[in-house]
Amino acid sequence: MQACNRAILERMQSPVALIPQLAAHLIAAGGKRLRPLLTLASARLCGYEAGPDHQRHVGLAACVEFIHTATLLHDDVVDESTLRRGLESANALFGNKASVLVGDFLFARSFQLMTADGSLQVMAILSDASATIAEGEVLQMTTQNDLSTPVERYLEVIHGKTAALFAAACRVGAVVAGKGKKEESALEIFGTNLGMAFQLVDDALDYAADQQVLGKTVGDDLREGKITLPVLAAYAAGSDEDKKFWERVIEASDQEESDLDHALKLITQTGAIKATLDKAAEYAEAAVKALEIFPDSELKDLLARTVLYTVHRAH
Amino acid sequence: MQACNRAILERMQSPVALIPQLAAHLIAAGGKRLRPLLTLASARLCGYEAGPDHQRHVGLAACVEFIHTATLLHDDVVDESTLRRGLESANALFGNKASVLVGDFLFARSFQLMTADGSLQVMAILSDASATIAEGEVLQMTTQNDLSTPVERYLEVIHGKTAALFAAACRVGAVVAGKGKKEESALEIFGTNLGMAFQLVDDALDYAADQQVLGKTVGDDLREGKITLPVLAAYAAGSDEDKKFWERVIEASDQEESDLDHALKLITQTGAIKATLDKAAEYAEAAVKALEIFPDSELKDLLARTVLYTVHRAH
Repeated sequence: MQACNRAILERMQSPVALIPQLAAHLIAAGGKRLRPLLTLASARLCGYEAGPDHQRHVGLAACVEFIHTATLLHDDVVDESTLRRGLESANALFGNKASVLVGDFLFARSFQLMTADGSLQVMAILSDASATIAEGEVLQMTTQNDLSTPVERYLEVIHGKTAALFAAACRVGAVVAGKGKKEESALEIFGTNLGMAFQLVDDALDYAADQQVLGKTVGDDLREGKITLPVLAAYAAGSDEDKKFWERVIEASDQEESDLDHALKLITQTGAIKATLDKAAEYAEAAVKALEIFPDSELKDLLARTVLYTVHRAH
Repeated sequence: MQACNRAILERMQSPVALIPQLAAHLIAAGGKRLRPLLTLASARLCGYEAGPDHQRHVGLAACVEFIHTATLLHDDVVDESTLRRGLESANALFGNKASVLVGDFLFARSFQLMTADGSLQVMAILSDASATIAEGEVLQMTTQNDLSTPVERYLEVIHGKTAALFAAACRVGAVVAGKGKKEESALEIFGTNLGMAFQLVDDALDYAADQQVLGKTVGDDLREGKITLPVLAAYAAGSDEDKKFWERVIEASDQEESDLDHALKLITQTGAIKATLDKAAEYAEAAVKALEIFPDSELKDLLARTVLYTVHRAH
């Protein structure tokens, strides 16, 4: 992971000073580096022997982190967020323009890293994932403010915007190790399910988290009229009066100061948070199950514990 | 070119309906398709024989157009433009969010097209160009409102934001034909110089064009405090009073209704448009010269005429 951090710092450089400045703000803000970690761990789980001449997993892990960072920068512009990981977001600090353009740079840089790696299979996996992410984000935009969005549509959105990159990060690790289709597919299933669980928990936390812990503003999703499972579940289980509340707040975007507290109350009362976390637990279970084909090892344990951590950070 | 248009229409599809809708708005708005044309022409000039099994140049030309379209979408967000090619710009019509995300989609799609093509050399050329474009755009942002920007810095900006993709579009054509380093390098030089000329003329037109002809709002660059050669030349050649005018309008962004007319007057009086077009003519000449290594042909003539058209559309 240290080698990966070094690669990230090295490859985000540019003679245009604002690029490393802005990228450093986000990258130094200390994300969990979950996605590159998945690439490294997947490669190792498939028996990839790292060494001075075997550093492909490191470059590709950095590449995955760049794709993720690029989407974060663009997300914050799209969502007009002012906080990210407990710090002022890049768009709030450097402006939307810089965030859009540095996101583009990091995205291009990730493709330079893939080209340097030289595997067409890896390139196919990561360029497909990049297209799927963008589709997921656009789909999410089209569901905004729309309480009639079916749960399936919501799941499709989070599959695109989150689970696709988790899956690709894992699968790329298996490809680098050259272990075989079975392992590749198992790790893809693992990543997909972990990503789904991760996003469901994230969406639950937006209505439940202590702002200090989460490092983001609670209620962001409500303010934006974002359609997530907590809202869909609370709406479905709500009384006529509750439904009117949601329609005003989410569909008509007619919001007052006190609406967040009321929304939190309804979401808790109707069991919507629990429903969301139960759904996350289902995906988490499927993720752990996907690891069954691998022999027991410390690393396999670590991956399983990552899944549990993801789900239980909400408790 | 018809095959290329078909490829563009086919590959901008997505199950997420907003994506083809927005992309079609821009692509149907009838750009000149100059960049993909350069890929097709370069391939042919290097003897690439198109046929049912030899369609690489078509896919890659579409890929170049997607990269260009993605940057246009993001540019319009960054510049807050409301017109593009004489129509309402995508950000004005669909919103900034959709423009950022569909730009990301097209960019990812372009890398899917490259992956399908399968040449690592092509991928290196186009991913390098993509990073250079983003660097050029960020550099341009950092020169905004700064009249002390050296002309060299401005040239670096337009090299990044425009010439790099022209150069890559041409070079990719040569690579597909597999002709050799000499041809590849000649076409890269051709593309670079054509791109420089193209952007210089574009920057001149922003202070000279008939809005109807250009399909963009004259004075956009002034309003944004964009540093282009017409402004730098007019500022350098201006009286003390003129300098104060530019400092108020460009540096302090303190603009009145009548400022555009006065700016146009100063730019004409000081010969700044002529200076910009002369510079463009130098690059145009270098572009035509780069074609010398190729035997005379109708196609070579066409490319040379493209250069002349680029320069003379301003007259």
